Amino acid sequence: MRPVSEPSRRGEFRLIVELFAPLATHPGARGLTDDCAYLSLPPDEELVLKADAIVAGVHFLTDAAPGHVAQKALRVNLSDLAAKGARPLGYLQTMALPRSLDDAWLEAYAAGLAADQARYAIPLLGGDITATDGPLSISITVLGAVPRGKSPLRSGAQAGDRVFVTGTIGDALLGLAVHRGTYAPASAQDRAFLTDRYDLPLPRLQEGGALLGIAKGAADISDGLVADFGHIAEASGVGIEIDAARVPLSPAARRAVAADATWLPRLLTAGDDYEIAFTATADPPSAANATEIGRVVAGQGVVVRDAHGRPIPFDKSGYTHF
Amino acid sequence: MRPVSEPSRRGEFRLIVELFAPLATHPGARGLTDDCAYLSLPPDEELVLKADAIVAGVHFLTDAAPGHVAQKALRVNLSDLAAKGARPLGYLQTMALPRSLDDAWLEAYAAGLAADQARYAIPLLGGDITATDGPLSISITVLGAVPRGKSPLRSGAQAGDRVFVTGTIGDALLGLAVHRGTYAPASAQDRAFLTDRYDLPLPRLQEGGALLGIAKGAADISDGLVADFGHIAEASGVGIEIDAARVPLSPAARRAVAADATWLPRLLTAGDDYEIAFTATADPPSAANATEIGRVVAGQGVVVRDAHGRPIPFDKSGYTHF
Repeated sequence: MRPVSEPSRRGEFRLIVELFAPLATHPGARGLTDDCAYLSLPPDEELVLKADAIVAGVHFLTDAAPGHVAQKALRVNLSDLAAKGARPLGYLQTMALPRSLDDAWLEAYAAGLAADQARYAIPLLGGDITATDGPLSISITVLGAVPRGKSPLRSGAQAGDRVFVTGTIGDALLGLAVHRGTYAPASAQDRAFLTDRYDLPLPRLQEGGALLGIAKGAADISDGLVADFGHIAEASGVGIEIDAARVPLSPAARRAVAADATWLPRLLTAGDDYEIAFTATADPPSAANATEIGRVVAGQGVVVRDAHGRPIPFDKSGYTHF
Repeated sequence: MRPVSEPSRRGEFRLIVELFAPLATHPGARGLTDDCAYLSLPPDEELVLKADAIVAGVHFLTDAAPGHVAQKALRVNLSDLAAKGARPLGYLQTMALPRSLDDAWLEAYAAGLAADQARYAIPLLGGDITATDGPLSISITVLGAVPRGKSPLRSGAQAGDRVFVTGTIGDALLGLAVHRGTYAPASAQDRAFLTDRYDLPLPRLQEGGALLGIAKGAADISDGLVADFGHIAEASGVGIEIDAARVPLSPAARRAVAADATWLPRLLTAGDDYEIAFTATADPPSAANATEIGRVVAGQGVVVRDAHGRPIPFDKSGYTHF
C-alpha cells in the first residue's frame, strides 16, 4: 500500500527481490512477482490458519539476534499448527521496519528464516514490508493442512480423559531469567540449554502429527501450562486436575527447583514453553514424547495438586498480553 | 505470544471477546475460542492469498477516523483479491496497539470492520492483539477463492492485447491533496467525493469477478497507473502504451486538470486508486465498468502518449514504499 509519507532508507523492491524472493520457493508464490499467492488443497484436507504478531521490546529483547527473531516469529505460529496436528503449507509475513535496522541485520534475519524454512518445510508465500517510526513489528500468518475434521480442538476434552504434555515445562522462563540476570545456573551447559529454550521455541510438529487421532482436546503452551489447560477446560466445559510432581522438568529445571522450591509454581504458570497440552484416552505413541500429568474431571477450571493431593494456590494462572 | 514486558492497559481477552469475537462469524473461526481457524475449499478452486500492513503516520493520517482506518486496512487487501477475480473467504488480523487508543476508538474501529464484513461478505477468521510503544500497526491477511488456474496474473499480458482500467484514476491523490491543503476544489461536493476516494478505497470485487475469463494480465492499482502497468509489462515481458487522453477521470478530477494541467501526469502516477489495471483481447462486460486506454506491444516498459502521440516524460513512474 502506498504510504502517506515517503521514508527513503532502502528500496522495498531491492529488499524483496534480494532477501525475500529467494524464500518464496512455493510455485504458488510466483517468486513474489505477483500481488497475490496461490495455493491448492487436497480435497480431503482442510486449512488450519493462525496469525500472530511480535513487537520488539514486547515479545523479544531489542538486542536479540536477528536470525533468532525471525525464527521465533515463525515458530510461535508453527507451534499452533503442531498442536492441531497440521502439516505446514506456507506463511505470509508483514514487517514494519524501523530505520535503525541496517542491511546486515536484515540479511541475518532472512538467513534465519531460510534455515527454518528448510527445517520445517514451509515456504514464504507473500507479504509486505513497510517503514515505521516505532519498534520492529513482525506479523506472520501460517497456513497448514489437516485431514478434514480430524484436528484436536481446545473444546475436545471430556471428563475421564487423561491429561498429557509433550517435552518439558518451564525451561523458557528460566532462560528469560538468565537473560535478565535473575537466575544464575550452576553450569554453562544449563545456561546455554535454558536460554536456547527461551530464544528458540521448538514447534512440536512431529509430535502433533503423531497425536492425530489420539489427542482429543489440545493447545500449544504459549501462555503457560496452567493457563493453556485452563483454555482447554473452559472451551470443553470440564475441569482439569494436574499433579505437580508429574509435570516433566528438564534436568536444568530440576536443578533450579532443587536450589529454590519457589521456582516450581512459577514454571507451571510461565509461558513460551511451546509444548503441546492435550487430553486423550488412548496411550500416546512414543513419537509424541508425552508425559501423563493429570486427568479431566466434571467441573471447571484447573487445579494443580502437590504430592499430598493438596491444591497449590497460584497468584495468576498465566499470562495476559496487556 | 507471551510478551517480555507486561503492559497493563486493557485486557486482551476482553477486547477479543467483546469487540472481535462478534466479527468471527465464520464457523471455522469458532468464535475465536480456539488457537487456530479452519477453512475448507471447494475442490475446483484454489486459494488466493494477500497480506498487507498499514502503519499510522505512514499509510494513514494519525487523526483518521477509526472506522476508516479499519476499512482501509481491509479494503487494500480486498482490492488485490478483486484484481485476481477472487471471491473473499475470510481474513486474519494482527494489531499492535499504542496505549493512547482508548475503548471508544477501538469500538469505532470494530464497527467499521463489521460494516465492511457485511458489505463484502468476508468474516474475521482469527488474529492477535498486542501492545506497542510505537504507532498503531495493522496487518491483514485475506484469503479468497478462484476457479483453479483461471486467475489473471501480472504475467498474463501478450503483445496485441488491449489495455483497460476500471473506474476513474487519480481521485485519491486529489483527495490526499485536499486533506493536506494543497488542493482546494471549487465545490464542497468535489471535496467530499475526492476525500472519500482517498479515505475509503472501493475494492472492485464485482468488476474483477465479471472479468474472470476476460482479463489476461491484471493487477490492482495501488502504486499508480503507470507503475502498476509497469509491473504487468515487466512480469509479462511486454511493453504497454497508454493514451493519456483516454484515461478515465472523474468529473471532479477533470475540473482539477482544467484548472491546472500539471495535475494530469501526477494523477497518472499517483497511487491508492484501487482500480483494476488489465489487458484483454475480448470486450469486457459492462459490469466491469472498464475503459480502453491503450495497447500491449512487443518491447518493455510503459509509454504514455499525449493527444499528438508524443511520449509524456515522467519524473517517476509511481511509488516505492521507502
